[in-house]
Amino acid sequence: MKAVCYVETKRVEVEDKTKPSIQAPTDAVVKVTTAAICGSDLHIYHDRMPGFTKGVVLGHEMMGIVEDAGKEVRHLKEGDRVVISDLAACGTCWYCRRRMFVNCINMAGFGTGPMFGNLSGGQAEYVRVPFADTNAGIPPAALTDEQALFAGDILVTGYTCAKNANIQTGDTVVVIGCGPVGILTQMCAQLYGPARVFAVDMVESRLQLAKSIGSIPINPKDGDVGPRIKEMTGFRGADAVMEAVGNEAALASTFTMVRPKGTISVVGVFVEPTANLPVGQAFFSEFNLRFGLGDSPRYREEVFALTESGRLDPARIISHRLKLEDGPKGYEMFDKKEAFKVILKP
Amino acid sequence: MKAVCYVETKRVEVEDKTKPSIQAPTDAVVKVTTAAICGSDLHIYHDRMPGFTKGVVLGHEMMGIVEDAGKEVRHLKEGDRVVISDLAACGTCWYCRRRMFVNCINMAGFGTGPMFGNLSGGQAEYVRVPFADTNAGIPPAALTDEQALFAGDILVTGYTCAKNANIQTGDTVVVIGCGPVGILTQMCAQLYGPARVFAVDMVESRLQLAKSIGSIPINPKDGDVGPRIKEMTGFRGADAVMEAVGNEAALASTFTMVRPKGTISVVGVFVEPTANLPVGQAFFSEFNLRFGLGDSPRYREEVFALTESGRLDPARIISHRLKLEDGPKGYEMFDKKEAFKVILKP
Amino acid sequence: MKAVCYVETKRVEVEDKTKPSIQAPTDAVVKVTTAAICGSDLHIYHDRMPGFTKGVVLGHEMMGIVEDAGKEVRHLKEGDRVVISDLAACGTCWYCRRRMFVNCINMAGFGTGPMFGNLSGGQAEYVRVPFADTNAGIPPAALTDEQALFAGDILVTGYTCAKNANIQTGDTVVVIGCGPVGILTQMCAQLYGPARVFAVDMVESRLQLAKSIGSIPINPKDGDVGPRIKEMTGFRGADAVMEAVGNEAALASTFTMVRPKGTISVVGVFVEPTANLPVGQAFFSEFNLRFGLGDSPRYREEVFALTESGRLDPARIISHRLKLEDGPKGYEMFDKKEAFKVILKP
Amino acid sequence: MKAVCYVETKRVEVEDKTKPSIQAPTDAVVKVTTAAICGSDLHIYHDRMPGFTKGVVLGHEMMGIVEDAGKEVRHLKEGDRVVISDLAACGTCWYCRRRMFVNCINMAGFGTGPMFGNLSGGQAEYVRVPFADTNAGIPPAALTDEQALFAGDILVTGYTCAKNANIQTGDTVVVIGCGPVGILTQMCAQLYGPARVFAVDMVESRLQLAKSIGSIPINPKDGDVGPRIKEMTGFRGADAVMEAVGNEAALASTFTMVRPKGTISVVGVFVEPTANLPVGQAFFSEFNLRFGLGDSPRYREEVFALTESGRLDPARIISHRLKLEDGPKGYEMFDKKEAFKVILKP
Repeated sequence: MKAVCYVETKRVEVEDKTKPSIQAPTDAVVKVTTAAICGSDLHIYHDRMPGFTKGVVLGHEMMGIVEDAGKEVRHLKEGDRVVISDLAACGTCWYCRRRMFVNCINMAGFGTGPMFGNLSGGQAEYVRVPFADTNAGIPPAALTDEQALFAGDILVTGYTCAKNANIQTGDTVVVIGCGPVGILTQMCAQLYGPARVFAVDMVESRLQLAKSIGSIPINPKDGDVGPRIKEMTGFRGADAVMEAVGNEAALASTFTMVRPKGTISVVGVFVEPTANLPVGQAFFSEFNLRFGLGDSPRYREEVFALTESGRLDPARIISHRLKLEDGPKGYEMFDKKEAFKVILKP
Repeated sequence: MKAVCYVETKRVEVEDKTKPSIQAPTDAVVKVTTAAICGSDLHIYHDRMPGFTKGVVLGHEMMGIVEDAGKEVRHLKEGDRVVISDLAACGTCWYCRRRMFVNCINMAGFGTGPMFGNLSGGQAEYVRVPFADTNAGIPPAALTDEQALFAGDILVTGYTCAKNANIQTGDTVVVIGCGPVGILTQMCAQLYGPARVFAVDMVESRLQLAKSIGSIPINPKDGDVGPRIKEMTGFRGADAVMEAVGNEAALASTFTMVRPKGTISVVGVFVEPTANLPVGQAFFSEFNLRFGLGDSPRYREEVFALTESGRLDPARIISHRLKLEDGPKGYEMFDKKEAFKVILKP
Repeated sequence: MKAVCYVETKRVEVEDKTKPSIQAPTDAVVKVTTAAICGSDLHIYHDRMPGFTKGVVLGHEMMGIVEDAGKEVRHLKEGDRVVISDLAACGTCWYCRRRMFVNCINMAGFGTGPMFGNLSGGQAEYVRVPFADTNAGIPPAALTDEQALFAGDILVTGYTCAKNANIQTGDTVVVIGCGPVGILTQMCAQLYGPARVFAVDMVESRLQLAKSIGSIPINPKDGDVGPRIKEMTGFRGADAVMEAVGNEAALASTFTMVRPKGTISVVGVFVEPTANLPVGQAFFSEFNLRFGLGDSPRYREEVFALTESGRLDPARIISHRLKLEDGPKGYEMFDKKEAFKVILKP
Repeated sequence: MKAVCYVETKRVEVEDKTKPSIQAPTDAVVKVTTAAICGSDLHIYHDRMPGFTKGVVLGHEMMGIVEDAGKEVRHLKEGDRVVISDLAACGTCWYCRRRMFVNCINMAGFGTGPMFGNLSGGQAEYVRVPFADTNAGIPPAALTDEQALFAGDILVTGYTCAKNANIQTGDTVVVIGCGPVGILTQMCAQLYGPARVFAVDMVESRLQLAKSIGSIPINPKDGDVGPRIKEMTGFRGADAVMEAVGNEAALASTFTMVRPKGTISVVGVFVEPTANLPVGQAFFSEFNLRFGLGDSPRYREEVFALTESGRLDPARIISHRLKLEDGPKGYEMFDKKEAFKVILKP
């Protein structure tokens, strides 16, 4: 089969790989119909994640049709259309039994290298899905692939970030970042009934996209965001701030705009291991700082329902639709920010 | 001053009454600019509330301009535009200090007779507001009177009903009733991110209004609602059901459509003191049954913010705008269901 | 094997029955080491539950040693000591996946007749446990059988009742009933940090037991409980009232003692299908009325941990230890209230 | 009057100061009966808080008898015994109206210098209390001064820390630090029904005190705490960790012992403005990091009730009772850790 593979720094290629097969009775093999390139794939592209060697199949956002299901798979059968979780959880450990699949002690990630269990990725014609009952979910028939796909990763990431922000009806909230995760976080934040969602980014086209989904755009180029948020909230600050960028400067900025007893919800993937925290201010203002990853097995049914009823419109972030063979071009465009979100069709 | 007064069963009249004045240093006197007739005013109109005699000034939904403020009023001054709470709370008792104003031990209602402290009502040119700092709130300048008015009663009633329903993002919920409270409850339910809001009523025009604000209409004339809800939820039932009618049959119906561990939130005013409860089913299905009244001092700022940002559109329920002098006609039309929601302009 | 069986009204007998065996690959067969007679067994004894015929094996509180485990049982093996849930859940339905095992759509009860799936009971030498991974849990080695047994039913019932009561630290709470469930509910209520737990019963010895575990006893014979609770709470009422009796009079009494916005948590099994509810008062006082059953698969690990650390002492309720052969005598004594809680040793 | 005053680094003296008087109609003047020296007083003693000059009256833990009350004080009168909040809140701002008194925008601290509004302290014969209705509360008559005193500061600090830790019944939790705040935090943590409370300190006598109130002592001298906690929790980590020391090393240690999705609740006062945060780990383990101060006006009634019923025993931490005149000796002993908690009797 064809698959997008890592080659070396800033180089991926489509290679011929062996088609995967059932290895455990709880596995399924899925024929991929749609995959996507995720922002964290760029970390691999730039060699910021350890252990990648030539030929590793990339991709952790994918969906398709069940081609084969192991004997102990109960909820899926050949021919079922499924969205696959970016992280494969075992379904039976202490965390999984409590629906904290993302904290599974046996967790492995697709296409994210040896640090995460070395599962072969989904930017390919086929992918093997361990513990398929847990990690592959059937979307409603009414949804197109493009509407359903992101329930496997990026949409539930934004959903978790918004959930963690403890938004109350009538609140004023801020989302730092209008990239794909930021836009979906804003969409999800609207589910909690805030009066206002401010969206912060320096790229005007991204701010326009944010505006089109109901956010109020703020460009830091027009002046420091913290004081402006304070001014628009009676000098209190925002009730919640969501950080969807993932670097220290973005995290630091949240402290300048959240009100006392407010919540900072962080969802951007941090590549750096540590960051400096203003504990003095955090202490006197009693901040609540939460970190979260997306949890597809936990939340996919909820986001499917919300997408079906039109409350969420995740397909909106797709800017480019390429053939799998054009995956390398997709990485290049995405890296150069010429593409906002690329999907690949095997 | 002119005021709409109770006369006898199914008869109200506009009478000349003495203009109220400050009686305690925490009072304010407000010149009413807009008032409304509430569904519970019809209970008085039909003599279902005790103790009314000729000449009692009616009305508990009103707003206006502060004409005079007592010496200990801190947050208001002459000329401020204010929305008045339907229930006057003391602001200092155990409940008020915990922002449960609606449970104030010194609570008195406007225009609702001797059972509720006998405060003179607001369907009048002027009204005296006790503990004005607590019971009168300044709406944002950007809101019209019609947008702000209902934060004093009916909108916060719907808001409380939705809040009590414990709606989770992605849920399926039902609102029984598409009268004014029902419609506002549906609007408020949307703030919690449900996938679907079903709206139940037998009047087709009301169902159309429900549909226009995003609800999915269900008419019991087309078949039993319980089984239909079950069918549309994979035979589980709704996650939450809100009862905005206020009679035993409506309450009983909620038990047929809520799922195990679901919530029934009741907001309709019950005139009958008791109702029969299916405790056997409630027990095995672990229902959560909540009763709630609106709490304007607690929630008015939140609903103001939500109205200002366009998330709530309470003025939508207004069907008739009459002069105060035409109050009696307003009662008649409302009683005959020729009017959906009547406001009066003194 | 020997088993306690239903014969006719107020008559049970020990009979010889066929030893159960594995019927499905997810079954286990458990050699019972300790069982108990539950208050709801008396409903059967008095023919208040439908469908019992001569020879049905009774009992739904039991634990023992795994004698045989089906091929698909993952977490248990021969020789494991297990506490068995009173209700057998499938572990894979929509509710089970969300840890609402008690609401399992395939739920079946042990020894509770055809209405609940007709599983053979556990007052026997052996019992077959369907979906054993879900319905049988291994207690910590440090616990004796008597300390672990009640995690299968009556202790998690009290635990759920207390959890549903929404107790806040510093609250004043009331538990109606000092029978076995009432006493365990009081113990569990203490886990939430109330300032005071009042315990209501008319039997002085039960009140003494309540007192010995830290509750403040109240005997209705000494005067109406409602007014006395009001007086001891600054005339507000209790923050939460737990009903652990299960009849309409007990439920009605809760409304006289709970404060506005307080919670009534009901756990007693209602044999009557309906009860009269004071909706007028419930409405104006904004009560929160919750019904709950125990959920052993969900909570057993928590109550095991709490028992191991000494925070819970469930064995305290045991008054009589009999041989399985003396089961009929146990029923008789329990029925006559000569015994508080009877356990049977096969 | 006599008062303990700052002189210079590591030097306080008892001086004669002018007795305070009513300055605003919402003030009260209180004759102090009992005061205490707090750990944060040592920050002043060591010149780690800015702006202290000779003659500033110290002390923010105090109680006494109302000597005089301004005309607008409603809830207090001459002769009332009151516990005073360490921080004086206005009672009417946005935060105060929502019972977040500690976030009051007009907040001023007693005896903590110009950074906190320069209120004269309470280690004195008299103290003026602004907004006395909010900042002075009447304890139950049944409590001694020593039992009631700490509701003004250190007890509600521990209470807040435990509340923020989001402890669930059955949890395993850790408190870092067995100083006065740490011990009270452990006491309060027990209110939430954890199975186990581990207490970490390097001073053996403090660990013994921790043990006497039900905690399980852990001395880092006996081996790294993180791995030991992991081992005792099935290698998961603690569900919640409370940090009651207030330095970067203590905060860093919490990350080594909390489980994924667990909570870190920080209550120690940080003198340093920033600390390094392991964001990589925080992100993948989805920590929840909360900072909190004590809020006496909000919580004093709850802790009074819990102390009256014996659930809390705050007086237990008192090691030395001195006359006000011996205040300087008290500071010296406390600084040298010869005293655990010193109270002063004017």
